[in-house]
Amino acid sequence: MALTLYTNMQSRGLVVDWLALDLGIELERKEIAYGAEMKSAEFLKLNPFGKVPVLVDDDVVIYELDAICAYLADKFFEKGLAPALNDPKRGLYYRWLFFGAGPLAAASDNQYLKVEVTPEQKMHVGYGDYEDVYNALIQGLEQASPCLCGEQFTVADISVGAMIMWQLKMDKLQPHPAIDRYVAALQQRESLQKHQASFVS
Amino acid sequence: MALTLYTNMQSRGLVVDWLALDLGIELERKEIAYGAEMKSAEFLKLNPFGKVPVLVDDDVVIYELDAICAYLADKFFEKGLAPALNDPKRGLYYRWLFFGAGPLAAASDNQYLKVEVTPEQKMHVGYGDYEDVYNALIQGLEQASPCLCGEQFTVADISVGAMIMWQLKMDKLQPHPAIDRYVAALQQRESLQKHQASFVS
Ligand SMILES: N[C@@H](CCC(=O)N[C@@H](CS)C(=O)NCC(=O)O)C(=O)O
Ligand SMILES: N[C@@H](CCC(=O)N[C@@H](CS)C(=O)NCC(=O)O)C(=O)O
Repeated sequence: MALTLYTNMQSRGLVVDWLALDLGIELERKEIAYGAEMKSAEFLKLNPFGKVPVLVDDDVVIYELDAICAYLADKFFEKGLAPALNDPKRGLYYRWLFFGAGPLAAASDNQYLKVEVTPEQKMHVGYGDYEDVYNALIQGLEQASPCLCGEQFTVADISVGAMIMWQLKMDKLQPHPAIDRYVAALQQRESLQKHQASFVS
Repeated sequence: MALTLYTNMQSRGLVVDWLALDLGIELERKEIAYGAEMKSAEFLKLNPFGKVPVLVDDDVVIYELDAICAYLADKFFEKGLAPALNDPKRGLYYRWLFFGAGPLAAASDNQYLKVEVTPEQKMHVGYGDYEDVYNALIQGLEQASPCLCGEQFTVADISVGAMIMWQLKMDKLQPHPAIDRYVAALQQRESLQKHQASFVS
């Protein structure tokens, strides 16, 4: 088994480091510099976006952070980071992963781009508008008990949890008691306590 | 087993109908009208976005089309619409699902919103810019042989394939030989031939 992670210490690739720590696995880490190296012909062959993280397993190339997360949780299924295939909770698990990779990411990027969606446009935009995404996040977190999928801590907590903690740190997410409660639950996770120094403070 | 799909005949919920047809399963379909019904307090409790599709399994509520797709492929794993958990192809499968739900959806929505990402902004935007997404789509499709994950037809072909066919139909996707070849392969699928009348033409 040779798992290689192309990443950068100043990137969301840190989420994969947290996941590896939680799973207790080693990845062969290759640090890729921003700029020329990440946009080199060689790297673009792996990921046409010229972005990190990228995981290579055997001859299969995986980009998109959540694809890497979902894949590693399945590959090391016995570690318990994903609900069983026939458990309805698995639907909730995917709902959170795709909420993070879809509406939450799109709304955050458009917040950075200063894009406002008008009420007339909302029905044609997959995430509605920023407020819808925030409300969905809070409605979802109010049902977290204490993790996104209930008692079981999953890789959705790692991916969505890291995004929430990072946005809080950057002052990009309006605080809410449901967010505080959820982050407090996350902080119980031993792997986060060990990893914390590097990206959450 | 009671699986209820809240949907609308004029929506991406049609993708779930195609999937159900392919799996050979029945969903209890509830047609939700756009406007007041979809934004009613009752429906917003299920999906705070007030959008379709939504799948309810037992007491678990699943929104986000790709979450529904990934969940049903796992729940009916024996039907063969997803690679095995420890198969590296499973990483490729997730890469395609998250590419569709992430960069492809975000870039398409921003095309509709007439948002242009400048070269300086690209590194902070998860999908880069529209051209990056198109290039990644083509680079990926050039490796499809003939399906996204190789020989095995998966639910990624249903979700990403439907998006591609819909965008072609709406003249929103620049044609390319790799796209033509892929769509021709999709059209071999019996379930699509049966479903075709309703959303692809
Ligand atoms: N990100 C969501 C988007 C869902 C969506 O935008 N659905 C459209 C129909 S295709 C809708 O319900 N629009 C109605 C509205 O926003 O009022 C998904 O992938 O399921
Ligand atoms: N949608 C991608 C986004 C990846 C991404 O934007 N990575 C950033 C670092 S967090 C990057 O590599 N930026 C460098 C660049 O675009 O040049 C994912 O989820 O993995």
